[in-house]
Amino acid sequence: MGTKYVYFFGAGKADGNAKMKELLGGKGANLAEMTSIGLPVPAGFTISTEVCTEYYKNDRNYPSSLAAEVEKNLAQVEALMGKKFGDAKNPLLVSVRSGARASMPGMMDTILNLGLNDTTVQGIIAQSGDERFAYDAYRRFVQMYSDVVMGMPKDEMEHLLEQKKDARGVHLDTDLKASDWKELVGEFKAKVKATLGVEFPEDPKEQLWGAIGAVFGSWMNQRAITYRRLNSIPADWGTAVNVQSMVFGNMGNDCATGVAFTRDPSTGENYFYGEYLVNAQGEDVVAGIRTPQPINRAKYKPGDLPSMEEVLPECYKQLAEIRDILERHYQDMQDIEFTIEKGILYMLQCRSGKRTAKAAIKIAVDMVAEKLIDEKTAVLRVAPNQLDQLLHPSLDPKADKKVIAKGLPASPGAASGEVVFTADEAETLAKLGHKVILVRVETSPEDIHGMHAAQGILTARGGMTSHAAVVARGMGKCCVAGCGDIKVDYNQAQFVAKDGSVIKKGDVITLDGSTGEVMKGAVATVAAGVGGDFGTLMGWVDKFRRMKVRANADTPHDAKTARDFGAEGIGLCRTEHMFFEADRIAAVREMILSADLEGRKKALAKILPMQKGDFKGLFREMKGLPVTIRLLDPPLHEFLPQEEKDIEALSATMGVSVQTLKHKVEFLHEFNPMLGHRGCRLGITFPEIYDMQVQAIMEAACELVKEEGFDIVPEIMIPLVATTKELAVLRANSVGVCEDVIKRYAVKVEYLIGTMIELPRAAITADAIAAEAEFFSFGTNDLTQTTFGLSRDDAGKFLPFYVENGLLEDDPFVTLDQQGVGELVRMGCQKGRQTRPGIKLGICGEHGGDPASVIFCDSVGLDYVSCSPFRVPIARLSAAHATLNAEAKAASAAKGCGCGGKGSDASQQPAATA
Amino acid sequence: MGTKYVYFFGAGKADGNAKMKELLGGKGANLAEMTSIGLPVPAGFTISTEVCTEYYKNDRNYPSSLAAEVEKNLAQVEALMGKKFGDAKNPLLVSVRSGARASMPGMMDTILNLGLNDTTVQGIIAQSGDERFAYDAYRRFVQMYSDVVMGMPKDEMEHLLEQKKDARGVHLDTDLKASDWKELVGEFKAKVKATLGVEFPEDPKEQLWGAIGAVFGSWMNQRAITYRRLNSIPADWGTAVNVQSMVFGNMGNDCATGVAFTRDPSTGENYFYGEYLVNAQGEDVVAGIRTPQPINRAKYKPGDLPSMEEVLPECYKQLAEIRDILERHYQDMQDIEFTIEKGILYMLQCRSGKRTAKAAIKIAVDMVAEKLIDEKTAVLRVAPNQLDQLLHPSLDPKADKKVIAKGLPASPGAASGEVVFTADEAETLAKLGHKVILVRVETSPEDIHGMHAAQGILTARGGMTSHAAVVARGMGKCCVAGCGDIKVDYNQAQFVAKDGSVIKKGDVITLDGSTGEVMKGAVATVAAGVGGDFGTLMGWVDKFRRMKVRANADTPHDAKTARDFGAEGIGLCRTEHMFFEADRIAAVREMILSADLEGRKKALAKILPMQKGDFKGLFREMKGLPVTIRLLDPPLHEFLPQEEKDIEALSATMGVSVQTLKHKVEFLHEFNPMLGHRGCRLGITFPEIYDMQVQAIMEAACELVKEEGFDIVPEIMIPLVATTKELAVLRANSVGVCEDVIKRYAVKVEYLIGTMIELPRAAITADAIAAEAEFFSFGTNDLTQTTFGLSRDDAGKFLPFYVENGLLEDDPFVTLDQQGVGELVRMGCQKGRQTRPGIKLGICGEHGGDPASVIFCDSVGLDYVSCSPFRVPIARLSAAHATLNAEAKAASAAKGCGCGGKGSDASQQPAATA
Repeated sequence: MGTKYVYFFGAGKADGNAKMKELLGGKGANLAEMTSIGLPVPAGFTISTEVCTEYYKNDRNYPSSLAAEVEKNLAQVEALMGKKFGDAKNPLLVSVRSGARASMPGMMDTILNLGLNDTTVQGIIAQSGDERFAYDAYRRFVQMYSDVVMGMPKDEMEHLLEQKKDARGVHLDTDLKASDWKELVGEFKAKVKATLGVEFPEDPKEQLWGAIGAVFGSWMNQRAITYRRLNSIPADWGTAVNVQSMVFGNMGNDCATGVAFTRDPSTGENYFYGEYLVNAQGEDVVAGIRTPQPINRAKYKPGDLPSMEEVLPECYKQLAEIRDILERHYQDMQDIEFTIEKGILYMLQCRSGKRTAKAAIKIAVDMVAEKLIDEKTAVLRVAPNQLDQLLHPSLDPKADKKVIAKGLPASPGAASGEVVFTADEAETLAKLGHKVILVRVETSPEDIHGMHAAQGILTARGGMTSHAAVVARGMGKCCVAGCGDIKVDYNQAQFVAKDGSVIKKGDVITLDGSTGEVMKGAVATVAAGVGGDFGTLMGWVDKFRRMKVRANADTPHDAKTARDFGAEGIGLCRTEHMFFEADRIAAVREMILSADLEGRKKALAKILPMQKGDFKGLFREMKGLPVTIRLLDPPLHEFLPQEEKDIEALSATMGVSVQTLKHKVEFLHEFNPMLGHRGCRLGITFPEIYDMQVQAIMEAACELVKEEGFDIVPEIMIPLVATTKELAVLRANSVGVCEDVIKRYAVKVEYLIGTMIELPRAAITADAIAAEAEFFSFGTNDLTQTTFGLSRDDAGKFLPFYVENGLLEDDPFVTLDQQGVGELVRMGCQKGRQTRPGIKLGICGEHGGDPASVIFCDSVGLDYVSCSPFRVPIARLSAAHATLNAEAKAASAAKGCGCGGKGSDASQQPAATA
Repeated sequence: MGTKYVYFFGAGKADGNAKMKELLGGKGANLAEMTSIGLPVPAGFTISTEVCTEYYKNDRNYPSSLAAEVEKNLAQVEALMGKKFGDAKNPLLVSVRSGARASMPGMMDTILNLGLNDTTVQGIIAQSGDERFAYDAYRRFVQMYSDVVMGMPKDEMEHLLEQKKDARGVHLDTDLKASDWKELVGEFKAKVKATLGVEFPEDPKEQLWGAIGAVFGSWMNQRAITYRRLNSIPADWGTAVNVQSMVFGNMGNDCATGVAFTRDPSTGENYFYGEYLVNAQGEDVVAGIRTPQPINRAKYKPGDLPSMEEVLPECYKQLAEIRDILERHYQDMQDIEFTIEKGILYMLQCRSGKRTAKAAIKIAVDMVAEKLIDEKTAVLRVAPNQLDQLLHPSLDPKADKKVIAKGLPASPGAASGEVVFTADEAETLAKLGHKVILVRVETSPEDIHGMHAAQGILTARGGMTSHAAVVARGMGKCCVAGCGDIKVDYNQAQFVAKDGSVIKKGDVITLDGSTGEVMKGAVATVAAGVGGDFGTLMGWVDKFRRMKVRANADTPHDAKTARDFGAEGIGLCRTEHMFFEADRIAAVREMILSADLEGRKKALAKILPMQKGDFKGLFREMKGLPVTIRLLDPPLHEFLPQEEKDIEALSATMGVSVQTLKHKVEFLHEFNPMLGHRGCRLGITFPEIYDMQVQAIMEAACELVKEEGFDIVPEIMIPLVATTKELAVLRANSVGVCEDVIKRYAVKVEYLIGTMIELPRAAITADAIAAEAEFFSFGTNDLTQTTFGLSRDDAGKFLPFYVENGLLEDDPFVTLDQQGVGELVRMGCQKGRQTRPGIKLGICGEHGGDPASVIFCDSVGLDYVSCSPFRVPIARLSAAHATLNAEAKAASAAKGCGCGGKGSDASQQPAATA
């Protein structure tokens, strides 16, 4: 017996189950699971992801045993449904849908009503007693199939439809009659023949294999590739194909179709939330073509259409029971799709529901209270990157705002930006540094790159489960959807709001994704609050994590933000930041322009008290917590103007000739400043600069200890060390200055001297370097640049191409490259500890706030990560995930089982904003 | 019993021997050895290098037991010599000399005649019966001691001497009388008191300890530090101090002093070569103040002064016997110093003699013929870096030359350059890229940096063993010494030659160090011949080495030079070189300026036939040998002009607007081009460029195979690979092109596809990369830049400071940094072989021609090194040293003995040109 490729489900029995997502995809695994637990699922079968992998491995050929397996399963479905595929009297119609391991909303193609031809349509007429329905279903099938499988341009078919409506003098599809649809089927088929030179397939089996091939083929289409790239999904996961008996939500007013979440996916509130449409096919809800009705009255708003609870009370009751079964069964909020055919409810899909950060937190905290899950599971339920949504500003309630329209609060947060009307414009302007709001009638998968580039998304049509809403929530972007208050005119590149405002391309608007309000101009925002459920969850987070989290902060203001977000110290204070401030830059320039040591010392003496003040401010803000201060890092030319006119202005201010200034600028010019005279190389060649900085740090500390009773251990960090000798020399200098200051103040102050590990050589020789360093901080930004030989400033010309084309899985400046850069970090840790077992190890590159990178940092045993203040909660949560996942892994390894721990979904769930 | 610090030698017995160089220094060890084998050595003792190390470790304090040991040994010397230190009647006088492990000519200070004071001088008068001699010796002592030990300015003493001569109306020192010298002693002492405020020490013991302290102190003086830096001698080796009974070569005409080599150090000829002076102290010969006489008539030239063989035949006979004893004993050419006191010969020093490359080779080859040494020893006797001298051009015999003066042929080779008169000028101009000839009356250790910077050295005074001659030979610089034909006038910055030519600072002259000729202007030169003894030696070299040696060559001309020098293939052909040529750059620019693929392909089609022609030329020249061709590496902006006026010129030629050109230049600008869009990143984003190059390579190969019956396996090398996927994609592209060409030509041609390992990430992930690479070539230039985070173009502002101040032992771009970069090379080799055991491994950075780096390459098991054509013989010899040293090490490890193999001196001997 060969490999089993096809998995049946139907009538309470299924070959698969929910744990088989890798093999059956999310949709297939859950269809099997729902069938097994007795929910009403139309029978069908799933062709496994292995077929997809084999298909691409074998030059787009199926495994030889597949055809027979499909036949066998199809026969089972026929038997169970009492219908026959291709039968003239009682034909079986099926849907063919993709289903990958990770949910990829809207990315894959679907064919409905498959099995229809001129013969079987008669059977459907007979069975349904509704010719119009039958021909409508038929033309939908031909339209979809010719587009998705055969590659007909969509517009051509739409054009024929428009022509038909014009000819009949009607405006709505619903005004067309059975005969019109029938004619259209013929016209569609003729168009296919004329355009593509082939007949539309009449044979249902041929249709079926065509559809299966199209699903597998769509795994490699551009939008799927883009989605996978944005979500870090490997191409070799493959997709499964689900073939399922059709049920119809559009056979009359006792039919309906809907999408629901077991809790509110936007707020997390514990009520049954969903939308449905009477007499519609499922695609109508998701595509956002008709604005749907709520399933119940839980959140009734004046003007809401009648709910399903009112219109189809029996079905609603059954659905509400299913909701409870699913939540208890999956112990998580579920996203479900259902269809009601002539009063009978069918479940078409269930999956773990995407949710906003706010909802994720509320659901996790509530479920602990409800004893559905434990605290550890709750922590693992929130994806760290999601928190970003919460940590960004929302509208300042006190700010003036001019609301011009209101839509659905589809994805929370607030954003301002210039209006653009196409995804390409959004991307282009964003690359130039503009903040943009993408405004569309509705969005489609083709718009993903533009949504990614935009600050926020506004659509005129579609509900809370429309493409725009779902994708925006996943990305953590603010989104106002279904905003009927605006009329979008692509041709004139403007929209008109209900109040008459005309907003043109380039005008600034503000969106509030939490209220659905659209405002003219930019409205002030405030930082997010971090209490309530968030606080509860973060309490658990802090209980479970091993690693400390510090922040990169250069000013007391940043330090305060960091501390508010739970930072446990400063991992990186960049002192050059202080050099750039307007009142200091003059002294800094005087220092650089000095011809000799005396001149430099004179200028440095002016900077000393300012730096001391900075450090005192920082120490005060971080009272009781460690602070790591990095000595001057950038090359000196960064402090001088480069442009002719700026040089002239400086010349006038400083009383130095333009000629002298130009000479200095020219002298300091570097071909590769990244690899130039910077970091500790400055400290070696101009020891007086570092001496001044160390003096400022120690005087600040001594004064606070002496005058304000602080307990403080400054951590002095030497950057860009390549050799042990550099560090030894600078350490000796620093110790000299420190001891001198301590003696002068006659206080006892301890201090640590350590280094950045940000060059490959430092990592490789970390054993020797550790002899001179009390701590290491891995500077993974520069370490990535040197390990890859890749300038961050210049990589824009090819790095995006690399990521888009799979030459790199992730941008290595966003997510730490574990194989290369990570190997150096691992080596640095191991060698450092070898020499100095208690050495303090941390990271201060931007990777310190990236969840995957934080988990790596935990695995190599870093003591802390340091990241930007706004990412501190993300790092804390990631660190907890790291600990908990490692625990689960160890536990399952101890049990000898290879499966992951329960509830580890969220951290593995691809973060849409990656 | 504590450590033994003092080692006695005298009367045929010695505590030490020649193998104890680390402890006794070279001089002390050889004095002990000579004593032991029965040669006439004045008794004395050596204070070990451990004392020096202890002295600096303990804040310039001696070990406590030292004083007693010195006393004991001094008493032994007194007993043996029958004299007493400080005695009024028969006083012992001693010399105090430094002696480090490695010979450091002229770098350390020496005190002669120590023990003289107003009392003991009377004893010397009584013993010698020569008051003039005694007071001359006394004033020499006071002069030396006050300078070296007490720090008196030399000039002040010289000035007193000049005054005395003026007062006496005489011109020569020899015209001064005993009473004059006696007066001068008093005047010198008074001057010391007046200048320094302290009395000149009368107590001989105080003098002795002062001198010992001065020797140890001089280990850390600036010129010693500079010499060590230039010669890679670690500071912690320390120096020994030799205290030895004085013998006098200046007590009359039956006295003499001399320096000799057991064979000619310049040519290697097997005759006794040396110089001596009657009635002189040793310093007179070395310092070059008097031009000395030959010791024999072996190379009589008209005008030579009478030789020692004629003047002191008995002594000469004894010396000639000692020469034979020493050569047999040491099995190497020796450099000896001797003194004859009243007809009795004393040996003051012997050491392995410094020699030119030519001499080293001839001596090694001759000694094999004489059965003194075996072939392996002969190979190890020649320091690889020395070969550089031989491989550089000599004067073209057919060139016109205007000889304006003739001096001694002190160090062979030919050089042209601008005349400068100070070492500082030499250094300054050399840094600006000028070629300079340093012209001095005589040189001193203070001039070393200038000699290093100069192309050649010309001195007016001094012999073949003068400071200038010895140092120049060590550095492999051409030198004409003792050129009495010229009158140097420092004040006017010019010299006047015998023929009346006036050569001013900045004028160009040419030196021929092999003939001693000085020529006006620049004279054409020719490449060195590589036959004769050189060929014999290189034959042995090739027999003993394991590693292959290839060359980096971009043109057929380079390839021919490389082959002539014994290259066994091309390890790196840089194809961009071909792009830069005048007739191609237009097509290259057209390609860069093309807006689309079609345009680029059109331009590339023009380049294709030219590249194909280049490759055919290269393949023809290297027939039968492997050729590695690297695909395009530099960023595209390197091919466009950057200056306004060049852009305008290009605009006119190409018919492209200035605006368009500027936009393109601006677009291509990079902040860090080293880390930018170059190497395989070009191949990934513009696959058509690499495709064209691969096509050109394969068409060239196929045509030669088909039409000319070549047997050729082109090696296609992809540069700057960071990830396996890059290589996989480019490999697949290349294979496609190769197979296509092969099919088109219908021939069988094999080819290899491999990569440079020049980024840390490539080395770290070499196991994965090896799956796609049939060979690795370590590009250690770029690997050094990225591993250190150090731009070669920008390092000039701090790297020299680093090397001068010991922050780096060597310039890592010259000698491979084994700890850091080398560790990555080691890792790359190990990981590469792990995946692909037979993978071909080589190096093509400039380190491939650096002896220490070549030895490292052997140790990690590279298959070949590739270097510039002129360094191929150096690499071959280094590779042989590597094999032989490894063999010796393995053998001695097997024997459980830690000492190095016999004859391994040359490769460990510091290369003066480092």
